[in-house]
Amino acid sequence: MSSSEIREGDDLLLFLDSKRTFLVKVKKDESFHTHKGYISFNDVIGRPYGGKVKSSLDVDFILFKPTLSDYLRKMRHATQVIYPKDTALIVNYSNIGPGSRIVEAGTGSGVLTSALAHYVRPTGKVYSYEARKERIEKARKNIERTGLMAFIELKEGDVTQRIDEENVDAVILDLATPWLVVPLADQALTVGGSFVSFSPTIEQTVKTTTALTENSFVNVETVECIMRRIRVKEGQTRPETLMIGHTGYITRARKIQKTKLT
Amino acid sequence: MSSSEIREGDDLLLFLDSKRTFLVKVKKDESFHTHKGYISFNDVIGRPYGGKVKSSLDVDFILFKPTLSDYLRKMRHATQVIYPKDTALIVNYSNIGPGSRIVEAGTGSGVLTSALAHYVRPTGKVYSYEARKERIEKARKNIERTGLMAFIELKEGDVTQRIDEENVDAVILDLATPWLVVPLADQALTVGGSFVSFSPTIEQTVKTTTALTENSFVNVETVECIMRRIRVKEGQTRPETLMIGHTGYITRARKIQKTKLT
Amino acid sequence: MSSSEIREGDDLLLFLDSKRTFLVKVKKDESFHTHKGYISFNDVIGRPYGGKVKSSLDVDFILFKPTLSDYLRKMRHATQVIYPKDTALIVNYSNIGPGSRIVEAGTGSGVLTSALAHYVRPTGKVYSYEARKERIEKARKNIERTGLMAFIELKEGDVTQRIDEENVDAVILDLATPWLVVPLADQALTVGGSFVSFSPTIEQTVKTTTALTENSFVNVETVECIMRRIRVKEGQTRPETLMIGHTGYITRARKIQKTKLT
Amino acid sequence: MSSSEIREGDDLLLFLDSKRTFLVKVKKDESFHTHKGYISFNDVIGRPYGGKVKSSLDVDFILFKPTLSDYLRKMRHATQVIYPKDTALIVNYSNIGPGSRIVEAGTGSGVLTSALAHYVRPTGKVYSYEARKERIEKARKNIERTGLMAFIELKEGDVTQRIDEENVDAVILDLATPWLVVPLADQALTVGGSFVSFSPTIEQTVKTTTALTENSFVNVETVECIMRRIRVKEGQTRPETLMIGHTGYITRARKIQKTKLT
Repeated sequence: MSSSEIREGDDLLLFLDSKRTFLVKVKKDESFHTHKGYISFNDVIGRPYGGKVKSSLDVDFILFKPTLSDYLRKMRHATQVIYPKDTALIVNYSNIGPGSRIVEAGTGSGVLTSALAHYVRPTGKVYSYEARKERIEKARKNIERTGLMAFIELKEGDVTQRIDEENVDAVILDLATPWLVVPLADQALTVGGSFVSFSPTIEQTVKTTTALTENSFVNVETVECIMRRIRVKEGQTRPETLMIGHTGYITRARKIQKTKLT
Repeated sequence: MSSSEIREGDDLLLFLDSKRTFLVKVKKDESFHTHKGYISFNDVIGRPYGGKVKSSLDVDFILFKPTLSDYLRKMRHATQVIYPKDTALIVNYSNIGPGSRIVEAGTGSGVLTSALAHYVRPTGKVYSYEARKERIEKARKNIERTGLMAFIELKEGDVTQRIDEENVDAVILDLATPWLVVPLADQALTVGGSFVSFSPTIEQTVKTTTALTENSFVNVETVECIMRRIRVKEGQTRPETLMIGHTGYITRARKIQKTKLT
Repeated sequence: MSSSEIREGDDLLLFLDSKRTFLVKVKKDESFHTHKGYISFNDVIGRPYGGKVKSSLDVDFILFKPTLSDYLRKMRHATQVIYPKDTALIVNYSNIGPGSRIVEAGTGSGVLTSALAHYVRPTGKVYSYEARKERIEKARKNIERTGLMAFIELKEGDVTQRIDEENVDAVILDLATPWLVVPLADQALTVGGSFVSFSPTIEQTVKTTTALTENSFVNVETVECIMRRIRVKEGQTRPETLMIGHTGYITRARKIQKTKLT
Repeated sequence: MSSSEIREGDDLLLFLDSKRTFLVKVKKDESFHTHKGYISFNDVIGRPYGGKVKSSLDVDFILFKPTLSDYLRKMRHATQVIYPKDTALIVNYSNIGPGSRIVEAGTGSGVLTSALAHYVRPTGKVYSYEARKERIEKARKNIERTGLMAFIELKEGDVTQRIDEENVDAVILDLATPWLVVPLADQALTVGGSFVSFSPTIEQTVKTTTALTENSFVNVETVECIMRRIRVKEGQTRPETLMIGHTGYITRARKIQKTKLT
């Protein structure tokens, strides 16, 4: 993140306001059309990041260098994508950081995969499994744009059937039947490693919790983060009227040494 | 995080259950006393992490290698410490990661400082300001135990008066008057950089928001994360009766290029 | 509420599902048109309440005798109407019941007015003030349909300037500046009586609380009810994705005897 | 509720602050002891309600005539008692009011029973079933103090086995297995009548919902009210740190005419 000049070929975030942003590639002699007029990229090249440009309808757009959050928000996705609030908690609960090795499934559109890769840089790795082949290529395109592909291995496969890695620091799941993954997650994890699973329904959460307590896990906990946006303005401050009331439950656990039979 | 043997001098997490854990240093010929009996460290040395040991009262304790979360939870603190849910969101909203340079204030007991340092490794840095000298030394002791001191510079100073750094990627605040820091944060941040502030009261949030919109910030948003713990058990599943109803509001913003006078 | 037959002139609730209901008046030889076909009232007259009728498109509608809730939900309104969850708490906190005498303002579309009248029957009264004359007549039409007009006196007036009644059991406010009503509410209330105010913003709540503590009130409390709808279905149970995140804060207090100057 | 004088034999609420109140009976020549000193009833007799009295330690207590809420809060109870927020919603959702006839179970300590009776006065009735005989007498004592016994019939019995009443306006349940009551509730209710059930766990809610949809009910909905107390004070306003995170789910439904076999 620097305040250098915008160059041809750069990714650029055109920012109108918090709810209206556009992630574009800067192309000489071309322009980008919005409902607030078009923007000529020739007007943009050479300007500093963080500055403004006027559209053809004289509306100001701010020129941001995209952050990872911008990329994630703009990723193309077929299915429901995980929210930042949940990504944030999953990262926190999984105890990962630079150098961590993670098994993740399913890849989906690659949003969570990219976020995890961001934090394990420069020496860690995310082994991301996806059972549906056609999704993998879409995810690859999404991820490549973020520049994080070097820290990710996309693998076709069903983690209820197979996990190749051993001694990983975390197994992180966002799929329909996480409880079926628990025995293989138990094998793949290092002792002390983290299991974290995100599920929309309470029944998934109950089944996953039961599976964890029947395998070598302790510290099994489930939380839900209810996020409220607050409209803050002197004399008119109040939570937003409409909110996302629920995304999912996050269940986490810590692997212990298997007790040997004696 | 590996499953190697426990050695003398190691930090060790004695885990009884999710609510009862003890962070201790392993010392030959010594023991650690709990309400569930004492544990002889000589019984522990040489055992694998993730295994179990029996106390003198025949109660099982699991032997975990402490994670950062364990260290943070056990830090000594004089003031209210930030909760993991808020740390998680602050990390997410600040767009930081390996290599980021961050100004943080106040240091307090060093909990948030350590968490930030964890994520900026191995090439980033957290410049953490604390106005009260006596707190700095206590924070240093807390942080040193985590092994993250190499990525932190503890500075005595009042960030409403002085910030030495320039072009930092994020300014992250947990102090009483964040709105007074906004003009200096504006100067210290790189264009596109993140301002994130945590405040318990709504009045602090209103003042900070007003200050941000009067300086070079856009995308000014405030959220609150209400965290519910769910008691998950087949046939008895329900949110916990007692919960932490409020910790604080998180306000974030993004710096733009100052408009030049023309 | 009885299972008697539907007659011409009756109000009738045509119920398709929880989100699609229609409140109509039964008129011989006429019909009611919906997106699911039309219903001939001649097919309806003589049927029992709670039974079904088929529309011209062969869709089943249930024939309910409207409850007060049905009337309230269908009232025509120009402004935001109070939600049942807030009405419920206001009724509870105000300690009213059959026989209570209440001052209420502003009347608005008459939703809260009607709900209060419902509970003070058959011997109580709601004195409902509205500053804007044109609203009073609209409210009157709404209320007349519910049959509760006998327990309500609609009054044109600004309660920050004048309250005629004395020794009322409760003063209940849903207006922009409740803090300005506090001194007159203090005069109008019986000792031990309840002040209850609903306000969308936190700044209104702060001002009202300050005014209450400066007048003869104790037990001053503010709450917010966050209502979650749960989608309950075996194997798919979860809170609804979208929810109403905020309607308003409810502040209540209890009047004490004014301390005499001595 | 009037501002008349306090007399011997009256129930009296001694109010210190919102969290410290005492419900006592006024007895000549006796006194009531608190941690803030004792109060001589002789000092109280003849004073107006809403006034103050000083304890032996010179602490002011306000003298309130108890409201129903005060009685309910002070009822002796062996089991968890329903919260006002839930009582409020149950009253609202059940569409009851003066004149309603209600079947309620289980009686428990009589808190919900009394609240319901309060609203059905002067012509309605609450038929309250309790399976455990010993609880009925305790509930009777609690209820008698409120003066509402005339509107309640306490019945020993298990509503999963027997409900004597017919054509009641509402069936209201707070017991362990509400789904087992659904068939009998269906028989007892008038067409269009309300079924409302309160349950702490999600599994109870799922079973009850399934039973309702398999019987003659529509409009089956489940909600949860999360109540936040707000500490309102100029410059220090924020939700309370500790809160009751969960009490229970409320499921409601409306009875339709049974479809005849043809």
